[in-house]
Amino acid sequence: MTDADWPAVFAFWHETVEAGESYAFPLGLGSDEARGWWDERPPGATVVLEEDGVVLGSAKMGPNRPGRGSHVGTASFMVAPAARGRGVGRRLGEHVVRWHREQGYAAIQFNAVVETNTAAVRLWRSLGFEVVGTVPEAFDSAAHGRVGLHVMHLRLER
Amino acid sequence: MTDADWPAVFAFWHETVEAGESYAFPLGLGSDEARGWWDERPPGATVVLEEDGVVLGSAKMGPNRPGRGSHVGTASFMVAPAARGRGVGRRLGEHVVRWHREQGYAAIQFNAVVETNTAAVRLWRSLGFEVVGTVPEAFDSAAHGRVGLHVMHLRLER
Repeated sequence: MTDADWPAVFAFWHETVEAGESYAFPLGLGSDEARGWWDERPPGATVVLEEDGVVLGSAKMGPNRPGRGSHVGTASFMVAPAARGRGVGRRLGEHVVRWHREQGYAAIQFNAVVETNTAAVRLWRSLGFEVVGTVPEAFDSAAHGRVGLHVMHLRLER
Repeated sequence: MTDADWPAVFAFWHETVEAGESYAFPLGLGSDEARGWWDERPPGATVVLEEDGVVLGSAKMGPNRPGRGSHVGTASFMVAPAARGRGVGRRLGEHVVRWHREQGYAAIQFNAVVETNTAAVRLWRSLGFEVVGTVPEAFDSAAHGRVGLHVMHLRLER
């Protein structure tokens, strides 16, 4: 993700976070503050999926924990509402899995997949992720009230 | 935790992290960097347990996630090696549960309890926490190699 990409990413980042169905980022953030939550520095990375000069989605990735947990990666994804249903999330997900393999991670862990975000849960399962556990009522969904957050995990065989 | 407490906390914080059996904080941190990982600002807090002017342990606590996840709290604990076996962890744990109740949290979530840290797992279970799931091989224990990290959870009835 370059500086030039950020305004387009921020537009759907903001819309997605404020919609209140998928991510527990702080609410009401401006562009600069939001970028601090999305821009990953090395050893992590933030990417966009662009088609015909239009940014359709973005993903960030990197170690889930420092120190003695840094062999496990994590990632987050945002897809522009106008681009949903076109495989953008899947292409970003496949990129993220490939990136972790190339970087030598042992596994990928998603810490907080909203259980009512069924499209995401289905996508991650189709990429091989399994639900390790579900923290009950840990996300305050705008539409559904308090719902569970899945911890999902993919072992990367070497 | 005051400025005057920090040098004592840093001594056992550093020893505990470098021992490599319980926390995935960055390794090799100096005092100022380490404090950045331990000092919680409002709405969170960092406390010490002191007896006869000696700091025996410390805990930090606060929301586990921002935004739509901020009704669930989290905490971390360190006990001075010289003070182990004297109920310091239990007293800190009881304080943390009480603090979350008083602040109106709906639950407490521990994100990464090392499964081979059996004293901690036993203590949290005795306070009512349950293992929601275990992320396999997610912690590189100095003594045991890659071991699981428990996600533990306590619902706070109102």
